[in-house]
Amino acid sequence: MIIVMQPEAGEAEIAAVEARIRAAGLDVHVSRGTERTLIGAVGDERKLDPEMFDPLPGVERSMHILKPYKLVAREWHKASTIVDVAGVKIGANAVQVIAGPCSVETQPQMDAAADGVAAAGARLMRGGAFKPRTSPYAFQGKGVDGLCMLKDAAARHGLPIVTELMDVRMLDAFLEHKVDVIQIGTRNMQNFDLLKEVGRVDVPVILKRGMSATISEWLMAAEYIAAGGNHRIMLCERGIRTFETAYRNVLDVTAVAVLKRETHLPVIVDPSHAGGKAWMVPALSCAALAAGADALLIEVHPCPPEAWCDADQALTPGEFAALMDKLDALAHALGRRIDRRAAEVESAALAR
Amino acid sequence: MIIVMQPEAGEAEIAAVEARIRAAGLDVHVSRGTERTLIGAVGDERKLDPEMFDPLPGVERSMHILKPYKLVAREWHKASTIVDVAGVKIGANAVQVIAGPCSVETQPQMDAAADGVAAAGARLMRGGAFKPRTSPYAFQGKGVDGLCMLKDAAARHGLPIVTELMDVRMLDAFLEHKVDVIQIGTRNMQNFDLLKEVGRVDVPVILKRGMSATISEWLMAAEYIAAGGNHRIMLCERGIRTFETAYRNVLDVTAVAVLKRETHLPVIVDPSHAGGKAWMVPALSCAALAAGADALLIEVHPCPPEAWCDADQALTPGEFAALMDKLDALAHALGRRIDRRAAEVESAALAR
Amino acid sequence: MIIVMQPEAGEAEIAAVEARIRAAGLDVHVSRGTERTLIGAVGDERKLDPEMFDPLPGVERSMHILKPYKLVAREWHKASTIVDVAGVKIGANAVQVIAGPCSVETQPQMDAAADGVAAAGARLMRGGAFKPRTSPYAFQGKGVDGLCMLKDAAARHGLPIVTELMDVRMLDAFLEHKVDVIQIGTRNMQNFDLLKEVGRVDVPVILKRGMSATISEWLMAAEYIAAGGNHRIMLCERGIRTFETAYRNVLDVTAVAVLKRETHLPVIVDPSHAGGKAWMVPALSCAALAAGADALLIEVHPCPPEAWCDADQALTPGEFAALMDKLDALAHALGRRIDRRAAEVESAALAR
Amino acid sequence: MIIVMQPEAGEAEIAAVEARIRAAGLDVHVSRGTERTLIGAVGDERKLDPEMFDPLPGVERSMHILKPYKLVAREWHKASTIVDVAGVKIGANAVQVIAGPCSVETQPQMDAAADGVAAAGARLMRGGAFKPRTSPYAFQGKGVDGLCMLKDAAARHGLPIVTELMDVRMLDAFLEHKVDVIQIGTRNMQNFDLLKEVGRVDVPVILKRGMSATISEWLMAAEYIAAGGNHRIMLCERGIRTFETAYRNVLDVTAVAVLKRETHLPVIVDPSHAGGKAWMVPALSCAALAAGADALLIEVHPCPPEAWCDADQALTPGEFAALMDKLDALAHALGRRIDRRAAEVESAALAR
Repeated sequence: MIIVMQPEAGEAEIAAVEARIRAAGLDVHVSRGTERTLIGAVGDERKLDPEMFDPLPGVERSMHILKPYKLVAREWHKASTIVDVAGVKIGANAVQVIAGPCSVETQPQMDAAADGVAAAGARLMRGGAFKPRTSPYAFQGKGVDGLCMLKDAAARHGLPIVTELMDVRMLDAFLEHKVDVIQIGTRNMQNFDLLKEVGRVDVPVILKRGMSATISEWLMAAEYIAAGGNHRIMLCERGIRTFETAYRNVLDVTAVAVLKRETHLPVIVDPSHAGGKAWMVPALSCAALAAGADALLIEVHPCPPEAWCDADQALTPGEFAALMDKLDALAHALGRRIDRRAAEVESAALAR
Repeated sequence: MIIVMQPEAGEAEIAAVEARIRAAGLDVHVSRGTERTLIGAVGDERKLDPEMFDPLPGVERSMHILKPYKLVAREWHKASTIVDVAGVKIGANAVQVIAGPCSVETQPQMDAAADGVAAAGARLMRGGAFKPRTSPYAFQGKGVDGLCMLKDAAARHGLPIVTELMDVRMLDAFLEHKVDVIQIGTRNMQNFDLLKEVGRVDVPVILKRGMSATISEWLMAAEYIAAGGNHRIMLCERGIRTFETAYRNVLDVTAVAVLKRETHLPVIVDPSHAGGKAWMVPALSCAALAAGADALLIEVHPCPPEAWCDADQALTPGEFAALMDKLDALAHALGRRIDRRAAEVESAALAR
Repeated sequence: MIIVMQPEAGEAEIAAVEARIRAAGLDVHVSRGTERTLIGAVGDERKLDPEMFDPLPGVERSMHILKPYKLVAREWHKASTIVDVAGVKIGANAVQVIAGPCSVETQPQMDAAADGVAAAGARLMRGGAFKPRTSPYAFQGKGVDGLCMLKDAAARHGLPIVTELMDVRMLDAFLEHKVDVIQIGTRNMQNFDLLKEVGRVDVPVILKRGMSATISEWLMAAEYIAAGGNHRIMLCERGIRTFETAYRNVLDVTAVAVLKRETHLPVIVDPSHAGGKAWMVPALSCAALAAGADALLIEVHPCPPEAWCDADQALTPGEFAALMDKLDALAHALGRRIDRRAAEVESAALAR
Repeated sequence: MIIVMQPEAGEAEIAAVEARIRAAGLDVHVSRGTERTLIGAVGDERKLDPEMFDPLPGVERSMHILKPYKLVAREWHKASTIVDVAGVKIGANAVQVIAGPCSVETQPQMDAAADGVAAAGARLMRGGAFKPRTSPYAFQGKGVDGLCMLKDAAARHGLPIVTELMDVRMLDAFLEHKVDVIQIGTRNMQNFDLLKEVGRVDVPVILKRGMSATISEWLMAAEYIAAGGNHRIMLCERGIRTFETAYRNVLDVTAVAVLKRETHLPVIVDPSHAGGKAWMVPALSCAALAAGADALLIEVHPCPPEAWCDADQALTPGEFAALMDKLDALAHALGRRIDRRAAEVESAALAR
């Protein structure tokens, strides 16, 4: 950490800053420039915080030199983490696609969705049983019944399931119903008590980026989970909030490139929530893959116009299968491949 | 709700939209323009959602005409709501000031803080026992012990207390320790399960605005609480996230003016978190009051440089008392007044 | 400037950074920490730029310690600048109000506007003869004829005029028609050729903040003008662009407080463009004044519903006079006053 | 246009709105709902503006149904525009790459840059002779001398040139030196006088997106150029300003997909300015191509650490050639191809 003193700071003020650094167990290095004196704290600066120094007399500002995250940082863990979800590997060279409807509605809907997901060759299924809705009057999800429907539909094709946990009190139900991947949604990225709890279980977690969370805040949220002992964390970019109103969110592909450098954790992209319209999903999926995503999270519904939630962003099974073919070609051009279930793809191809 | 059809939309597509509106129990009004056909839904459009229409063939886009909030809307409840907190009224002509440290540290610290708050004449006390921290390695709050320290310190001066609830599992402890006002923090504004729970209790709630929440999302979060039966809700603007990096957040005074028009709920402003620096607090407090705030939430610490959290934004008791005097003069110029505890102010004035 | 080396940087890489610092004429100060080596450049770091170091091998990142602006910085010019506009002083304790219509339409409209402005006691008049419009099909302003109408209308009451310059080729016409204050609009804040030209003339300049300009970029734009020799610069906050869609812009009152600390230049606020609605103007004007603004720029039109531009944000002369009274009371509570033309105010008061 | 009346609006107020619509030559269609009366304007609503109605008594708000742009809209011009720059086609199936240094420095630097650009097979060359710099003390570009250097260097390989015009007074020099494509930079996107002037010449224009310009504002800026008679317009996405500070800008790939639907104009992406770091350029280039970009604008410098401007974002000729190979593979997977100069690529491949 560097503390920048005000131009008129005197020796007593410099000494007070030095004392506070030493009190925290770090060494001090003073540099007297022509316009400012800088005081460096030598040692593990993660014990320090700018607010320890900024209110002291004579201090102009102080700043960290190191990034605040450690367990999730690539600096401290060079090899990329590969998360194994019931045998499906996320973070390896092969790219995974997680697909399914926004929300669980009925067993027939989920069965049809699972058929479409599997037929296109995706190896993981998603579906929301607990839904974070802006309006208290909107459909709030099927709850535990929805978990069962999702699990049953996916089991017919051997697909591990991904579903969102909103309330810490439901974690036991998630464990009991053997949810394969717990998703922490955008609005809960900094629900720290929830992060602490999923940090204590042995289930992989997808941590979605908060709507306006910086990379640093997002990685610190992941650090909460890792600090609890659960290192099977995947980050999911889902579009950020900006000034633009022509589309719901701005898919931040720069974040994908930056995350691959800053952290060893796998990076997933959700192109469906980002754009908010089904017609944007293919272009955004391709862009995400090209930017380096390890997996995609795509909404697929057997009949989008009838969907109870986010109807406008789901692909039909046919559109999804066509997109999988396109992604496959793109992945090969990038030296990767889509990890597809071979047999079912074949039959799907026949059916098209 | 208005559904705008694509220029090439045919009669069958128009009929399908009409059918869907009627199926929801509303009437239909069609307007054929020179470039577009518009279909209006006549009735309670809150039953409808753009995503019910946008995926239908021939639809360009659809839009709500009415605001989505109802219980919290001034349109449906013209009189301003006044929330009574143990006899202290928020939302009336007299302006309240809620003051205290960012976090509860020790009983002596809380006692000194309470003395300073009371001496300056504020009628409510704040203090965080559960702290939402970006880093898992930072001080996370004193927990239930902190609640007790806050309650005890405030009780000596008869000050009702305001403190943040982060985890739904702690709600019983809040009730047991007779927390007078439950604060829902920025990061939990859309923690819908938490909102539902505080909607079921009979304790006033301060709902802070999410870091990048729109007015509409914020009021819908308040609607969650109101829909549960708890109508003693206060909104607190605390700065929004923008592109600017010279200060932590941008205090959105326009929101204050807009909220006073859109909702009947009291509007509070937190100038301390908004700016992030103690020296900004007086200017931002004055601006908030001038914009129409019903209350201010100000951080005061007996010794800011020693604070365990947000040290750089707390006022000393002396600075706070001086600010109260300034706010008082300003309030009178605006035709309002600061609701101050007369006797203690006098002794404070003597002490200065 | 501090250059942070990567953890694995070797001696040769450190030496290369040192050499580059010395080549620019500065001294070097190396600090070897436990996790990083830091290299400090001692001397006038304004000669250096992070991009001189960031591409060098072994460099992690580099950062300025000093602010980039100098002529406009309070650090180098402690006393507040007072800009004298034909005898009207902006930046002193007395607060100025600049009022008038968004755009110059006709001579009768301008005469009526000037009457209203003067009657309420404002001492400067605004009006746009050249209009930056989002649409090429919208009214683009009356041009030089408009300058004459504005000048004539204002002259009847001895009001100096403020009007926007968009095109560097019109500067001579502005000088010829004796425009008292040249306004540089939001969209031209970084039109550097225009800034250079107004830096060469002896006419005060109001520099509006770009829609998403940081404080630093804004002050550097002012530095362009100052570097040309024109030090009569005033900064005008007019709302920034954010994610919020419920109102046009977010008036950034925090910027007012920060600017008063960072620069010696006067700070003006335009509450009319910020909110975009006439009903918001009183609240935003009061907030701006309370935050420390030296002047306000308020739209007044003799008949707002008939205005050719921004009709929805102009006050009527009556509303404006009432606001002036309110601002006056507020200014006194803040230890300032509104600089009002006494005689005409009296007659206006009689007329109400 | 739809005008929404307030719930309490009476017949006289509705009649006033109707009268104003009819006065503009449009028909009226009234729809009386259960909570609001809506008044539709039937005809060319581009003659109307919300501000014509919002200030009228009884009006709640009014909104456009149609997009404001016309000449640049795909709705009115279904076929994609292909801009021919001295025989190089932008907007067709083959993707173009425009490469070169940020700024023109010396003739040897430009010659070396041109060699690298041509060797990698790019068909257009960029270089800045007039530089928009945040600081008045930074290098401002070589001016007209720079134009000559760029033209000469590019001519040796038959590359048409792209360079930025900042000042309307330099347009004649641009025409005289036969600049092949005029670039309008981010900071000048709404410099309307500049747009009008380039609208009058017969030279293709690249219009970069303003740092926080919406899609609608951007297309309206293009409409300014088109309205002047120049239809050879290309749009260039270069990253937008957001809350994120970990990288300079957020490359908005969603904009690419949306623009391809909204407008018939070619869409270019500048991955170099977006990320601000050379190591990000490959990932962002691939993402842009995958999202549907028609061309890329990439910074290449013979020796990036020695560049006078934006040194940290330029690729070396070798890195650029490798990227071209990668883009080529990707383009083929997308059913497109990179338009590369065959012969020189061959020799470049040999040289690697």
